[in-house]
Amino acid sequence: MQRIKMVIEYDGSSYHGFQVQNNAHTIQAELEEAISRLNGDKTSIMFAGRTDAGVHALGQVVAFDSESTIPPDKWQFALNTYLPPDIRVLRSMAAQPDFHPRFNALHKRYRYLIYRRQAGAVHYRNLALINDEILDLEAMSQACTLVMGTHDFRSFCASGSSAKTFERTVYNCLVEENASLLQIEIEANGFLYNMVRIIVGTLLDIGRGIYPASTMKEIIASCERSQAGPTAPPQGLYLMHVTYPGEE
Amino acid sequence: MQRIKMVIEYDGSSYHGFQVQNNAHTIQAELEEAISRLNGDKTSIMFAGRTDAGVHALGQVVAFDSESTIPPDKWQFALNTYLPPDIRVLRSMAAQPDFHPRFNALHKRYRYLIYRRQAGAVHYRNLALINDEILDLEAMSQACTLVMGTHDFRSFCASGSSAKTFERTVYNCLVEENASLLQIEIEANGFLYNMVRIIVGTLLDIGRGIYPASTMKEIIASCERSQAGPTAPPQGLYLMHVTYPGEE
Repeated sequence: MQRIKMVIEYDGSSYHGFQVQNNAHTIQAELEEAISRLNGDKTSIMFAGRTDAGVHALGQVVAFDSESTIPPDKWQFALNTYLPPDIRVLRSMAAQPDFHPRFNALHKRYRYLIYRRQAGAVHYRNLALINDEILDLEAMSQACTLVMGTHDFRSFCASGSSAKTFERTVYNCLVEENASLLQIEIEANGFLYNMVRIIVGTLLDIGRGIYPASTMKEIIASCERSQAGPTAPPQGLYLMHVTYPGEE
Repeated sequence: MQRIKMVIEYDGSSYHGFQVQNNAHTIQAELEEAISRLNGDKTSIMFAGRTDAGVHALGQVVAFDSESTIPPDKWQFALNTYLPPDIRVLRSMAAQPDFHPRFNALHKRYRYLIYRRQAGAVHYRNLALINDEILDLEAMSQACTLVMGTHDFRSFCASGSSAKTFERTVYNCLVEENASLLQIEIEANGFLYNMVRIIVGTLLDIGRGIYPASTMKEIIASCERSQAGPTAPPQGLYLMHVTYPGEE
């Protein structure tokens, strides 16, 4: 028995999210089906981040056990021949028998993409939020610095979350302009349900001047979801990277 | 009766090209259907460039006649409500009654996108050629300068073309590296069937070192399709802009 770890990327546009659900087209189901077609294994894969419908990944991490004699690093090539073109394995490797992609993760990094023009938006409709409003990037940057640190992030947690604790540490929160794209990157030791999308929705309200950057502090302190901005739509969100001990 | 000119963009990924064909999902058919749903007009639209299956446009130009009282500049908004999200009207305006988007075009500009990495390629699979081979960009640039000027471009014309003359003038042919993307832009007074894709395929062979940049000159002079490189795949190609008299 060998535990295999893989880094995968996917275009989430046509999936009902990562996690297996009855009668739904999910990325987990495609991965488990590809493993089964490759060597007959019925396996349930573990994963680092449960991405929602329409959300993408450039660095999702999964793991599973196999009795197969396929060398760990060859799974990448072998599985890609069975996977649809919108899911790709980037790397595969051997992992410790008790490795778990979610429980062992030290931190995760997400990116949110905003396409700032109407022309050319047709190619970004599933890959970014299309928004060409005038935004105060300076105010958004200031608000980002207030997100950093250890806080109770309950204000940025969607209802229906099964989280038991709401304290998380945000190591990095950054707005960057790159030609027609605005990107917001957030790295933390963990994320509550919809946390990135609600932070982005709040940053956008600050960019629009609905309230000043300093309000971010009060929103965090309120511990009330109703004080934060709307949840930004899923198509702009990317799970970029998951860091494990020894990899910092 | 009013002739309407529109600039449109589309993601060609899920279409069998621009032009109406029996039982095929085409961009022209979607446009004509949207016009018909908007005001009952049965119209046949004229267009600047017949793009193939999978080819995109950021600046296709179309025109049609309508008896409708919709002001010319309002067609943009009105049609977008009836069009699928992968086809967008960017601008609409009144045109001279004899305006024809193809016959009146002075020059057209195409771009070919090559994504130069494997990581992240999942999001470019329908929007660029994925190629991470080592390429000699200097040689490709040199070959581009040999494409410029007035030549018989028969070597870069797919069989099955109905062209009567093969002489075209290329005003610009440029390779540019932009982060993970290589883009090749070609502007000419007209293009033969598959001309951009065959030029790109030839430039790639030169980038790979299969033959030197100077061979481009001999390939043009040979007037033989067999001397040029392979036809690059459609998903990297974008019709960027069409220029008309008075717009230079």
